[in-house]
Amino acid sequence: MRVLALLDGTLVDPETPLFRADDLGVTRGDGVFETILVADREPRELAAHLDRMQRSARLMQLPLPDRAAWLRAVQAVVDAWPWDQERELALKLVCTRGIDGGDGTPHGFALGSSIEAGTLRKREQGVSAVTLERGYEPDLMERAPWLLLSAKTLSYAVNMAAMREAESRGADEVIFTAADGSVLEGPTSTVVLARGDELLTTPPSSGILEGTTQGALFRTAERAGWRTRAEKFPVADLHSADGVWLASSVRLITQVRSIDGSPVRADPQLHAELARLYESNYGTG
Amino acid sequence: MRVLALLDGTLVDPETPLFRADDLGVTRGDGVFETILVADREPRELAAHLDRMQRSARLMQLPLPDRAAWLRAVQAVVDAWPWDQERELALKLVCTRGIDGGDGTPHGFALGSSIEAGTLRKREQGVSAVTLERGYEPDLMERAPWLLLSAKTLSYAVNMAAMREAESRGADEVIFTAADGSVLEGPTSTVVLARGDELLTTPPSSGILEGTTQGALFRTAERAGWRTRAEKFPVADLHSADGVWLASSVRLITQVRSIDGSPVRADPQLHAELARLYESNYGTG
Repeated sequence: MRVLALLDGTLVDPETPLFRADDLGVTRGDGVFETILVADREPRELAAHLDRMQRSARLMQLPLPDRAAWLRAVQAVVDAWPWDQERELALKLVCTRGIDGGDGTPHGFALGSSIEAGTLRKREQGVSAVTLERGYEPDLMERAPWLLLSAKTLSYAVNMAAMREAESRGADEVIFTAADGSVLEGPTSTVVLARGDELLTTPPSSGILEGTTQGALFRTAERAGWRTRAEKFPVADLHSADGVWLASSVRLITQVRSIDGSPVRADPQLHAELARLYESNYGTG
Repeated sequence: MRVLALLDGTLVDPETPLFRADDLGVTRGDGVFETILVADREPRELAAHLDRMQRSARLMQLPLPDRAAWLRAVQAVVDAWPWDQERELALKLVCTRGIDGGDGTPHGFALGSSIEAGTLRKREQGVSAVTLERGYEPDLMERAPWLLLSAKTLSYAVNMAAMREAESRGADEVIFTAADGSVLEGPTSTVVLARGDELLTTPPSSGILEGTTQGALFRTAERAGWRTRAEKFPVADLHSADGVWLASSVRLITQVRSIDGSPVRADPQLHAELARLYESNYGTG
């Protein structure tokens, strides 16, 4: 099931072409996006996603359409979704820089899609991950903003290639590492580990995307007495942790069961506690 | 002027949308492309471009439509171009991975566009360049093929951001440098320098795109008695060279006049010689 809305709130057939061949989104991956979970009509972390899309756009000097337009498109998809058939959808917001050599008008849409079977399986059964080099030093981001390390751009070919590399190694997911061996992020997720009464994640200053789902988890975990920290840590810490998770909007708080072929601690009770803390952010929690 | 052809050779209106919102080219920059100069009906280095697109596709595990389809689309654009009005065009070949969750059919086109005024100015007057960090070690490519360093993918947001960074510094072009300080390439060009009777460029093993225009120049330069070499070199070599050029299909052999605000040697006779050597590859030379 796919439901597509334009920024004026109009619904259009998702199978009808929408982008010209000379749109910079097509020819240059020049644009930004967000993927949002909508569960039981509630778009989760919508404000955080829209804030992050605005930050991505600013880093790219892309004139993002205003928030009202995005909210209109989101509402149009939510209103048109067949809730009697499916109680969740993955909502993608996309904005390209528009026509190459055109008047600079950006081109955006909101597309709701059914949750894929593979995603449901990852949520329920957890995942195997491999570490892959990302190639840069964690201090690069501040020195080299043109590398867009903290922007969620449409240029995701490397993220997709890394996922294929994982599959070719018989794994489900990737954990990127920096040139200094520290842990960065997944191609489409944030790494979280538990250690005693502490939850740890990589700081955005390492050139990773600030995680909306990880943010939601940390928010309620703090209230429940967990200490939370964003700090650089080496791959070895994944292996010695009490648990490792990949947080993403649609896969939620996915438990990691093995890394590079070695099992990591995967306590079902600890997993259930984190999942419950995350869910407690929402009406369904 | 824009002329658009599909891979079956059909011409379509370039202003009519061609890509669905859920095409992986739009949502993930997941695809490959080439830009080819067509001058006086002759597509320059067409075989080298198609070979490179095939290499890019292989690195991305993208099933590229066969060569006959691309040749058909190229011919359709060339045949439809208004040659009485414009004697050159920039021909972009694009292939995306097709619909997300679809049957895996790639989606391609050939788009001919007029040469932009800014490009003509760069050809004639040369350019100022700034060096910008690309962030990785030159030996990364062989270790980490998932980073697609030698593939020409549609994920060019960083290349475009680097060009904006150059403009914000009052420069026309970028020369990327590796973490070890060696010279890599431009965002859409290959770096060439002259030193005595030698032409030097960065080796593809440093994780750069193999240059078709640089290749054409080196081919005729060798015949004319130049020694040519692909070898790593530091930024300092740009400043001590007899001349520095950025080679690209549409901007041709563009003379670099300054780097990071310092003038570099820019001998008009040497430039004319290299331009002539490059042109001698073609019917118009």
